[in-house]
Amino acid sequence: MARVFNFSAGPAVLPLEVLQEVQTEMLDFAGTGMSILEMSHRAPAYEKVNSEAEADIKELLGLKDDYCVLFLGGGASLQFSMVPLNFLPQGKKGGYIITSTFSDKALQEAKKVGETKILFSSKEQGYNRVPRQEEIALDADLAYVHLTGNNTIEGTEFFDYPETGTIPLIGDLSSDILSRPIEAEKFSLIYAGAQKNIGPGGVVVVIARKEFVTGRSKSLPTMLNYEVHMENKSLYNTPPVFGVYIVGKVAKWLKRQGGLAAICERNKEKAALIYNVLDALPDFYRGYADKDSRSLMNVTFGLPTQELEERFAYEATALGLDGLKGHRSVGGLRASIYNAMPQEGCSLLADFMLKFYKEHKNC
Amino acid sequence: MARVFNFSAGPAVLPLEVLQEVQTEMLDFAGTGMSILEMSHRAPAYEKVNSEAEADIKELLGLKDDYCVLFLGGGASLQFSMVPLNFLPQGKKGGYIITSTFSDKALQEAKKVGETKILFSSKEQGYNRVPRQEEIALDADLAYVHLTGNNTIEGTEFFDYPETGTIPLIGDLSSDILSRPIEAEKFSLIYAGAQKNIGPGGVVVVIARKEFVTGRSKSLPTMLNYEVHMENKSLYNTPPVFGVYIVGKVAKWLKRQGGLAAICERNKEKAALIYNVLDALPDFYRGYADKDSRSLMNVTFGLPTQELEERFAYEATALGLDGLKGHRSVGGLRASIYNAMPQEGCSLLADFMLKFYKEHKNC
Repeated sequence: MARVFNFSAGPAVLPLEVLQEVQTEMLDFAGTGMSILEMSHRAPAYEKVNSEAEADIKELLGLKDDYCVLFLGGGASLQFSMVPLNFLPQGKKGGYIITSTFSDKALQEAKKVGETKILFSSKEQGYNRVPRQEEIALDADLAYVHLTGNNTIEGTEFFDYPETGTIPLIGDLSSDILSRPIEAEKFSLIYAGAQKNIGPGGVVVVIARKEFVTGRSKSLPTMLNYEVHMENKSLYNTPPVFGVYIVGKVAKWLKRQGGLAAICERNKEKAALIYNVLDALPDFYRGYADKDSRSLMNVTFGLPTQELEERFAYEATALGLDGLKGHRSVGGLRASIYNAMPQEGCSLLADFMLKFYKEHKNC
Repeated sequence: MARVFNFSAGPAVLPLEVLQEVQTEMLDFAGTGMSILEMSHRAPAYEKVNSEAEADIKELLGLKDDYCVLFLGGGASLQFSMVPLNFLPQGKKGGYIITSTFSDKALQEAKKVGETKILFSSKEQGYNRVPRQEEIALDADLAYVHLTGNNTIEGTEFFDYPETGTIPLIGDLSSDILSRPIEAEKFSLIYAGAQKNIGPGGVVVVIARKEFVTGRSKSLPTMLNYEVHMENKSLYNTPPVFGVYIVGKVAKWLKRQGGLAAICERNKEKAALIYNVLDALPDFYRGYADKDSRSLMNVTFGLPTQELEERFAYEATALGLDGLKGHRSVGGLRASIYNAMPQEGCSLLADFMLKFYKEHKNC
């Protein structure tokens, strides 16, 4: 079958070039006579993959030697626990900015570990926006401030990360990592499940200030201790080799695209194609997010009836526009338009939205 | 380059047929118009992969509906902690049979969680064997008995799992899972990093008696709670999709080979080719493991000098026999001959061993 335009929220579309490279190399990686799937994580060819992926991600984010990049298993959901286990001592509070279902999941895991404080929540408004700086209630007894950079289910995104002074900032950037230039140095630690913008499921990328992860509790389970992974360059145990290999290829693809500034321009153009339809036809296409908080990665909207939404998704799928159903927890529709979604996919979706409107506006 | 014979201990050789299927399907999995790498873990095509992998593994092991199969991230090393976190309550002891570096790592993680007891240890003998039943000091206050089924570094393997009566038996079968028929029902829980016999790095297979994992601590980090993963059929969060896909393909390949009895016969023949050389030339090739404990998966041996060992590995590599260096912690040589190693690889290695002996016996 011809390739569809895959609007899934994650795992999600990958660059075709990357998939073609993987296909070509499947039986013989880098002249080693074996597949990357069969290669020891101690082999020089894999160590090169690992170290280049780290270096390329740092280069894309403009980070220096005071940061490390780790590749771990367990997904962002395991990070929800690793963050408080590593960084929330007794007598301090983990500060959480609650802008989504996933922010709240992170908070619930932290509550199992220690004291927490909600610094802002848009839960009562159905998580329709992120906060402005002055809405975030900082406090001297915070061990860290945790935020979710892009809210995949709801379609909102932080564009100005809050100033937290001397309090370490920790970000779950799973769904907008490497989608635009950011002030990465504002963060003491960033984590991101790779399966949206930069790779397949099964690998999480952690970007951490080395000083921040040093000297934490020695009594932690070894695999949950960031310092162990840093000291071992992600090779304490067998890492998700294949996932790291893909992340590395995507990082090189991003560099070929011109880096984060260039991909950001393209992402803005892609998002505008769809948001423009929402803005032109607000009685039919009901954007979910507040305008100021609109995500460049996940465009969420509803139609006048659930029946129309189902029909929309069904007809779109038939046209090769796949994965547009909203998350099962909120319903509606969602177009996830990560880095690797071609502009053509967004154009076709916008065209289909106009056509669907004309056919159904009087329903 | 032509494919080498890959004797690495893990990640390790995979069946060529499986790699060829993966290559063919890379851009379009099951007619979906997308790569398996891009597919939502909630997509019906992936749910089929997940459920068939579970069913095929249970079929191969002869297990029924009272067992579940889970696919998790974090590797066997995270299982070292998950086992005591889930199954070691206050007032009980985790019982450990110490037959290898990895058994000891499991013990060290359990010590962070609660009380432990060493039931047997061959540490002083350099882990050269596994125990007989009568050497295992069982005790009424044990929460479970933990063993390492095959000791990858040292080259020893359990062939008769101990009788533990009413005490639950837990096995790390990372390096011999699905390599021969076993009495799987002896175990309350089996875990296995997939990257040796059944898949790539980044996915661990857990096979558990459902009753055993039910009703454990609710205060555990969610991702470390087996029951959560069981209730969600490994889909609580984004699983290592691609790894599960490969494991599923390997399970189907094993079924095509005739199942575990057939693959076991082949594994015995392969191992005999190499052990026969050790036994014929014991002054030159010094087998590491006690004969009764010899692994069918990892054949470990030394040569008279370290210089000869290095030369052996170097010359073998030049002949396309790759990955024969022993683990960095013990040195020597190691031939890992998992399910997917063709008999031809073992024959060529045995031939090379004879040739090398003739050339160097008088050194």
